Amino acid sequence: MAGTECEQWQICSFGEVSPLVYSVLKSELLQDPAFEFTDDSRQWVERMLDYNVPGGKLNRGLSVIDSYQILKEGKELTEDEIFLASTLGWCIEWLQAYFLVLDDIMDNSHTRRGQPCWFRLPKVGMIAVNDGVVLRNHIPRILKNHFRGKPYYVDLLDLFNEVEFQTASGQMIDLITTLEGEKDLSKYSLPLHRRIVQYKTAYYSFYLPVACALVMSGENLDNHIDVKNILVEMGTYFQVQDDYLDCFGEPEKIGKIGTDIEDFKCSWLVVKALERCNEEQKKVLHEHYGKADPADVAKVKALYNDIDLQGVFAEYESKSYEKLTTSIEAHPSKAVQAVLKSFLGKIYKRQK
Amino acid sequence: MAGTECEQWQICSFGEVSPLVYSVLKSELLQDPAFEFTDDSRQWVERMLDYNVPGGKLNRGLSVIDSYQILKEGKELTEDEIFLASTLGWCIEWLQAYFLVLDDIMDNSHTRRGQPCWFRLPKVGMIAVNDGVVLRNHIPRILKNHFRGKPYYVDLLDLFNEVEFQTASGQMIDLITTLEGEKDLSKYSLPLHRRIVQYKTAYYSFYLPVACALVMSGENLDNHIDVKNILVEMGTYFQVQDDYLDCFGEPEKIGKIGTDIEDFKCSWLVVKALERCNEEQKKVLHEHYGKADPADVAKVKALYNDIDLQGVFAEYESKSYEKLTTSIEAHPSKAVQAVLKSFLGKIYKRQK
Repeated sequence: MAGTECEQWQICSFGEVSPLVYSVLKSELLQDPAFEFTDDSRQWVERMLDYNVPGGKLNRGLSVIDSYQILKEGKELTEDEIFLASTLGWCIEWLQAYFLVLDDIMDNSHTRRGQPCWFRLPKVGMIAVNDGVVLRNHIPRILKNHFRGKPYYVDLLDLFNEVEFQTASGQMIDLITTLEGEKDLSKYSLPLHRRIVQYKTAYYSFYLPVACALVMSGENLDNHIDVKNILVEMGTYFQVQDDYLDCFGEPEKIGKIGTDIEDFKCSWLVVKALERCNEEQKKVLHEHYGKADPADVAKVKALYNDIDLQGVFAEYESKSYEKLTTSIEAHPSKAVQAVLKSFLGKIYKRQK
Repeated sequence: MAGTECEQWQICSFGEVSPLVYSVLKSELLQDPAFEFTDDSRQWVERMLDYNVPGGKLNRGLSVIDSYQILKEGKELTEDEIFLASTLGWCIEWLQAYFLVLDDIMDNSHTRRGQPCWFRLPKVGMIAVNDGVVLRNHIPRILKNHFRGKPYYVDLLDLFNEVEFQTASGQMIDLITTLEGEKDLSKYSLPLHRRIVQYKTAYYSFYLPVACALVMSGENLDNHIDVKNILVEMGTYFQVQDDYLDCFGEPEKIGKIGTDIEDFKCSWLVVKALERCNEEQKKVLHEHYGKADPADVAKVKALYNDIDLQGVFAEYESKSYEKLTTSIEAHPSKAVQAVLKSFLGKIYKRQK
């Protein structure tokens, strides 16, 4: 999802109007009549929002408006439509901020988006758990403020609820799989990897933005199970790329130094390796995977090279692309096809 | 809210059917088609639910069905109505479990309901943060399973969202008020205490159960602002009792040894004391409040006696009762009056 193709639609709404929309949504939340803020608590929320919500790449948010624009088949969007689609985009960014604030606590992380994790700030600490909850609670407040009268209001609530449930469930299998002390590599398998990735990432990163755009266009999501399946497939492919780049990408391009091997992650690479190793190589993996020592990491990487994981990935990538393209072209609506192709174009063979 | 008056309604639905309803709801969640459980994750959720959801006094859950029964003015409830009201009662218990799991992490607590806090279990740890999120996500799943077709479905979603937002906001002012290192007693005041109590406790413990019953009865909550105000008032009074009993109650009756003084809590007692102290007494409070040493605690308690806080509380209690009774009797509906009086009767002059 690196880069956007909004140029081709003449309007780059989210990128242009998003700072404005963000500040409108924020100031509404800081004046919410359902709660009497103290001065301290109003300042706290403002600082917490500014620290955690807007600093990402905004790809998910942008995707709502891109998709909505494509579904309108080139018709110019009204100001109101741009605002509403941007608002849904921001709701996804809020959801993302909520997950990240809590994930960083659970993973005991140090930095996020080039700054210390929110809970690492001396004054914050475990209050960050409640701040995560507050971020999550902002989403229905925003939806109520701007969509309460729409015929699809309840569908939006159901959609956000279902996708949040799926994400939390994916996070759960990820957490209990890599449970400290129980690290047993043989538990990692392709079906398990797929399940983690699908639930933890694909639903909220790929399906949710398009689903928001479909709902706003008056569509019933029950009629778009095929779109969901394709996007979940695409999100899975995206995460496999992520796993691949963590080891084989250029740190300058991906903006970080991967540590999946050190962290004993259930990565596509280790799962594929386990599948392709002989008994001796399997022993090497069991011995050296999940260790912080660079010598251990080097042994794992050498093994990945021995079994040509780069070639295996290249084949996976082109097969995925082919399969996705076939599925997309089988879709009856040209507009929906265009949305899905736009997504696929953004991620195919990405280097970052 | 200790004890229930269900005997007088012939049927003690929640108490009788609740274990059954709980097990139905749980097994639906463990079969949720929106997520493909692994065996491990299904077991995890079941264990997590059994550990955290059913072990409380169930007062909030019981209140839904009690209130609904009273609103029906003695008419016998159908099996379906009993099941649905019990289901809403359990949703409140799920909400409570979610708050408690996360609060215990934030407060670094050790025990809850006579057993170690969930996050204290060796295998759980910080996974408890995600478990809290999962508990929270179960509520809309339950509502969707049982209320999706009802005309008041969206009102239920809005209600739970609003009350959760208020609770999280109340928790926020409580947390930032007692921020470690910034402990400044002079920040504690009656309006602040009121605000914390109202948002953190009263909405979800007092308003929510009755609001659920009203919604199920087909009522529009916008027409019941007065009921909300009375219940929030009652919830505030309830929490003041709680603060009082923490210091002056009998540990055998309240089931715990209070530590509000040691914990630097923004309790009604310290707030009232600050209001009534002379300058010298204020110094004593500043010096000894919030210290773990029993000698410090004793000094604070002696001061509470010197300024007759027990008498002040007795007066507050009878004034609150009077005021609440007057407000209740001003309500146009006898059925609503009965609901509110039933609540008030349960808590007036409680010793536990």
